[in-house]
Amino acid sequence: MEPQFVRLDAQRPFELAVGVSGQPLFGEGAMLNLIRFAPGAEVPLHSHPHEQLGIVLEGMQALVIDGVAHELGPMEAYVLPGGVEHSAYCGPDGALVLDVFTPVREDYAARWDAEARE
Amino acid sequence: MEPQFVRLDAQRPFELAVGVSGQPLFGEGAMLNLIRFAPGAEVPLHSHPHEQLGIVLEGMQALVIDGVAHELGPMEAYVLPGGVEHSAYCGPDGALVLDVFTPVREDYAARWDAEARE
Repeated sequence: MEPQFVRLDAQRPFELAVGVSGQPLFGEGAMLNLIRFAPGAEVPLHSHPHEQLGIVLEGMQALVIDGVAHELGPMEAYVLPGGVEHSAYCGPDGALVLDVFTPVREDYAARWDAEARE
Repeated sequence: MEPQFVRLDAQRPFELAVGVSGQPLFGEGAMLNLIRFAPGAEVPLHSHPHEQLGIVLEGMQALVIDGVAHELGPMEAYVLPGGVEHSAYCGPDGALVLDVFTPVREDYAARWDAEARE
């Protein structure tokens, strides 16, 4: 793989949930995903074997684990080990979040590639 | 490892180079590092086997590879494969950058832990 340089907020977006879009950059062992929550949007409870790290850049993102909501504002960061069930919601102004996954979410990569061919 | 939630810009900083500090959050397979460049600061040419991804949050960070300077402003992201020699400098106002490494930089973790005991 060669070095890559991209304007992340100009990447082609894909839908993660209703009102929640992702703009990805795929490395070999990890990926970035710039997530925008429209006001009121949420991500249903789910889990994945990938470790997820991230940081809130704007607004508020709450990560809900075991029924406990962790409400995170700008510069608040997190690590979710693989396999931890979580859901997410945002504040009244929505949220802008940078997510990191390791290993790469091949499901996202496949979907993102497929959408390029539509 | 349990889920972690931290205010990244309040983490104890460590020095990466003169005028360049890092504020880390360590996962199991990847880590975040919030990097602040003071105006005029730079990171000398170096390499590491770890893949490095990142995004500029404020100011300008240039990544120099093979003598070519890639000057990156806010929301510009990158992937540097492991082993790629690079140096970095910033713009006149410094820079705030989020770096991601996979695997975890154990050299950083050891240094950060050691500094906690000083």
